[in-house]
Amino acid sequence: MTHQAGIGLGVDFSVLAADPTDSAALVAGDVTLGDDRGLDDVLAFAKAHDVVTFDHEHVPEPVLRAVEEAGGLLRPGRDALRFAQDKLRMRTRMAELDAPSPRWRAVTTLDHVASFAEETGWPVVLKASRGGYDGKGVWVVDGPEEAREVVDRAAAEEVPLLVEEKVAFSRELAVQVARSPHGQVAVYPVVETVQRGGICHEVIAPAPDLPEAKALRAQQLAIEIAQALDVTGVLAVELFETADDVVVNELAMRPHNSGHWSIEGARTSQFEQHLRAVLNLPLGSPRTNAPYTVMANLLGGEDPDVYRRYLHVMAKDPEVKVHFYGKGVRPGRKIGHVTVMGDDYQDLLERARDAASYLRGEQQ
Amino acid sequence: MTHQAGIGLGVDFSVLAADPTDSAALVAGDVTLGDDRGLDDVLAFAKAHDVVTFDHEHVPEPVLRAVEEAGGLLRPGRDALRFAQDKLRMRTRMAELDAPSPRWRAVTTLDHVASFAEETGWPVVLKASRGGYDGKGVWVVDGPEEAREVVDRAAAEEVPLLVEEKVAFSRELAVQVARSPHGQVAVYPVVETVQRGGICHEVIAPAPDLPEAKALRAQQLAIEIAQALDVTGVLAVELFETADDVVVNELAMRPHNSGHWSIEGARTSQFEQHLRAVLNLPLGSPRTNAPYTVMANLLGGEDPDVYRRYLHVMAKDPEVKVHFYGKGVRPGRKIGHVTVMGDDYQDLLERARDAASYLRGEQQ
Repeated sequence: MTHQAGIGLGVDFSVLAADPTDSAALVAGDVTLGDDRGLDDVLAFAKAHDVVTFDHEHVPEPVLRAVEEAGGLLRPGRDALRFAQDKLRMRTRMAELDAPSPRWRAVTTLDHVASFAEETGWPVVLKASRGGYDGKGVWVVDGPEEAREVVDRAAAEEVPLLVEEKVAFSRELAVQVARSPHGQVAVYPVVETVQRGGICHEVIAPAPDLPEAKALRAQQLAIEIAQALDVTGVLAVELFETADDVVVNELAMRPHNSGHWSIEGARTSQFEQHLRAVLNLPLGSPRTNAPYTVMANLLGGEDPDVYRRYLHVMAKDPEVKVHFYGKGVRPGRKIGHVTVMGDDYQDLLERARDAASYLRGEQQ
Repeated sequence: MTHQAGIGLGVDFSVLAADPTDSAALVAGDVTLGDDRGLDDVLAFAKAHDVVTFDHEHVPEPVLRAVEEAGGLLRPGRDALRFAQDKLRMRTRMAELDAPSPRWRAVTTLDHVASFAEETGWPVVLKASRGGYDGKGVWVVDGPEEAREVVDRAAAEEVPLLVEEKVAFSRELAVQVARSPHGQVAVYPVVETVQRGGICHEVIAPAPDLPEAKALRAQQLAIEIAQALDVTGVLAVELFETADDVVVNELAMRPHNSGHWSIEGARTSQFEQHLRAVLNLPLGSPRTNAPYTVMANLLGGEDPDVYRRYLHVMAKDPEVKVHFYGKGVRPGRKIGHVTVMGDDYQDLLERARDAASYLRGEQQ
């Protein structure tokens, strides 16, 4: 999706991919095969290009440091990225910024977890500080027995843990902000993300019936975080909506699933915006193209032949936009998404869900 | 632009390009270098792929015939393409279909031209039957002296000529229709194309203040032509608007400059629509995303460094979408386009023109 945006901008765009079947490697014109987390390959790639950005947070910090020390230009830079790579650092920094956050604590033993839960009540949320993605590395635990399992495994794998209170939220929100090296920012409308099993299923842009004060608060928070962390590119801030506020849940420093709606739904998609920021170009308008845009993720189902099924989806609803990522189909894996725009978000949600569930093989 | 659409559809997309610096070759993931008009290369390419389509009309008919006889699948097929390749055949077929057309005649001598002009009055329009593009191969001649030059050159180069009356039109229009092998059609709104020196400078979608009867007439004509000519893919029909009718000017059987507005301006762009038709997928909705979309072509100016100038354009108007084709800059060459959407077409036209003229180097 970033390559699609790069084509329009007329920029030379290269991909460092671990495997020729990686989504980006399938479609980009200039692909370097190599270890996208390994020092030698990332360093060589950075030296051969003017600027390097990322579509995941898993490049180890020592690799990033070596690239920057060798004069490679990373956007976002290592100093910003570490807050998206490490949840302990992120929570510490959010506390310094006074950003609304759940209560949390770094924990290494079951006793730590139990004493935290005495203050907040069970259940609590245990999180691996590093390596999480799509609900992996996050465990909602109801009591000490469940917590023990997580703590023991984390100790065995030497993964630092933190515990967070389970926020009493009414729904989950997200907001994207783009920031350029000049410090120019462009913020998108706050969206609602509908999660099931820790995985985002749908996004409604903008979040229906969100009070303006909360929307402004979320956008302002995103801008403040982007500035404080010196982010270059797109920052996605995932939030909980509570009775009278919003609470920071997670950060991602790249175009994020919660912003895919913007490909059709905004004047400037998050992918184009990320490239513009990373290339130090003026940012584009985040204005919406319709009153509502709904995105639904396509998750792989039992039927691996999802591609044939999309004829039906296209025929049934010619306004549904289907995006496939060229990935092999595995149950639960995000293999694409659909987008639909219009005036009535409930109608759009129904149509997007219908298309996604048909593609997943839940309807015959 | 077709590759951008192909990425979203998740289809494997390859390009046969004559030169590695061709626009499509710069961005596609799978590029075969070869002669895009030569028998051997086109045939080998067709055998290696399920379906072949075109972004120009210049593949010679014998090459197309050989590919079809060898079992290659061309969409549109040779029987349709010849009407876009040869203006004499096109005019003959339009007459058979009773499509509103200028008076015309095949001519080989100056006498033919002069006797035609006695009926219609000077000026008349001479056209090379084959090989025209962007005003090349079209000459508006005011009298026998000017006509002689064209007739002599055509005779020397063995290019068949036709003469057409100069239609008294109020403006030029265009309409895109997509047609699938099933015969499903999807037609876009009729647009106004603003031409200067035989080159399209701007497109306003939809054409402002076009009476509904004329709009329907134009759309109906496009559908009838697509069906009668058995077109697969996108057909662009360029038209003149006259006092009480529309008149067919030219046909193109591919995504066309007059439809570039649809990338942002319609639910389904002409590029995606072309791929859907060519791949025998259900067609997408041609519904517009805004009351008006204006596209302005970027023509190369004297300043070859157009790319640096776009920082200014992006900064001045964050809603302008810039598309570059990766082409070298030559005066008058189409090197990209800009698009802007909104409610007031005159405001949009001004902004699109401003961006295009700045990029061309006409403003400092």
